[in-house]
Amino acid sequence: MKIPKHAKRVFKGVIHDVYQWDQELFDGSTQTFEAIRRPYTVQIVPVIGKKLFLSFEKQPLKSQTYTFFGGRGDKGEKPIQTAKRELLEETGFVSSDWELIREFQLGFKTEWRSYFYVARDCKKQAGQKLDAGEQIQVTEVDFDQFLRIVTSEGFWSSQIGCYILRTSLNKKKLSSLKKKLFGR
Amino acid sequence: MKIPKHAKRVFKGVIHDVYQWDQELFDGSTQTFEAIRRPYTVQIVPVIGKKLFLSFEKQPLKSQTYTFFGGRGDKGEKPIQTAKRELLEETGFVSSDWELIREFQLGFKTEWRSYFYVARDCKKQAGQKLDAGEQIQVTEVDFDQFLRIVTSEGFWSSQIGCYILRTSLNKKKLSSLKKKLFGR
Repeated sequence: MKIPKHAKRVFKGVIHDVYQWDQELFDGSTQTFEAIRRPYTVQIVPVIGKKLFLSFEKQPLKSQTYTFFGGRGDKGEKPIQTAKRELLEETGFVSSDWELIREFQLGFKTEWRSYFYVARDCKKQAGQKLDAGEQIQVTEVDFDQFLRIVTSEGFWSSQIGCYILRTSLNKKKLSSLKKKLFGR
Repeated sequence: MKIPKHAKRVFKGVIHDVYQWDQELFDGSTQTFEAIRRPYTVQIVPVIGKKLFLSFEKQPLKSQTYTFFGGRGDKGEKPIQTAKRELLEETGFVSSDWELIREFQLGFKTEWRSYFYVARDCKKQAGQKLDAGEQIQVTEVDFDQFLRIVTSEGFWSSQIGCYILRTSLNKKKLSSLKKKLFGR
């Protein structure tokens, strides 16, 4: 959702800021509405030849699970800069062939944009430089394995997973996603 | 997610409470983790004969869209009581044949349970009693229309929509959902 401009920030958290505003209802009365704003995130699928890479990740309080590489935007960054930084930190990969696959609005009563990128023709430039809050195995998969993992129930992001599931049910869309991932 | 017991509530909102705690990371260092707790919600599919009902709903700041009937739990309520109250308010229906179809954990870094009910063999007992923040058209659909609307991209809850989409792709699961909705 989009938080109205006149909304007031009533709490500033380490990730979540809470906003409130007086909202006029259908009968002319008003009510305090509330929503969350959080930093945008990026998700990246790196590609080398016919191989795609997923993160097999362990975080505190969570069981090990497949996710996309990526993370939250830092202050002053643009989404593509966040994507390049996160990919390098989490995989050691660099690419000069980036493309935005799709933008998502995630969450509910939450202003949270998410940018889903492909990084084609990656080169390994460095080792991983992980935060102390992540353990990441860079996992190589082919396109069929990629679809199976990402569209499975319980995949990290149900929204992005469901987008890929819908895409996979439509031949044209699937072929266009494949083209985006592997290049023309 | 489940917020740890020792987490501290650092903000109390009208819907969203924010919790923080010191989380030990993999290298022994600690970091402030943050998560949201919000009241559970219920979703209800009322059924009369071979007809299902969806809410075609307008809320402030949102465009009119199909949703399930339902809403947030009030203090001291149990989910089934919330479901009975919301169904009566939003449709005027009562039922003596309720069944929980499935429980969901919605959101991200958020403790938000959701209970998805069927109310079979509904009887119209009263008129709608809507909040000033909702305009609801009770919309009758058959099972195929139901599937089409609920599994379409952009449906109100991508998570529940995706659950139904997955179900619809598996003959056995689809037939079991149909049985649950219409009774044996």
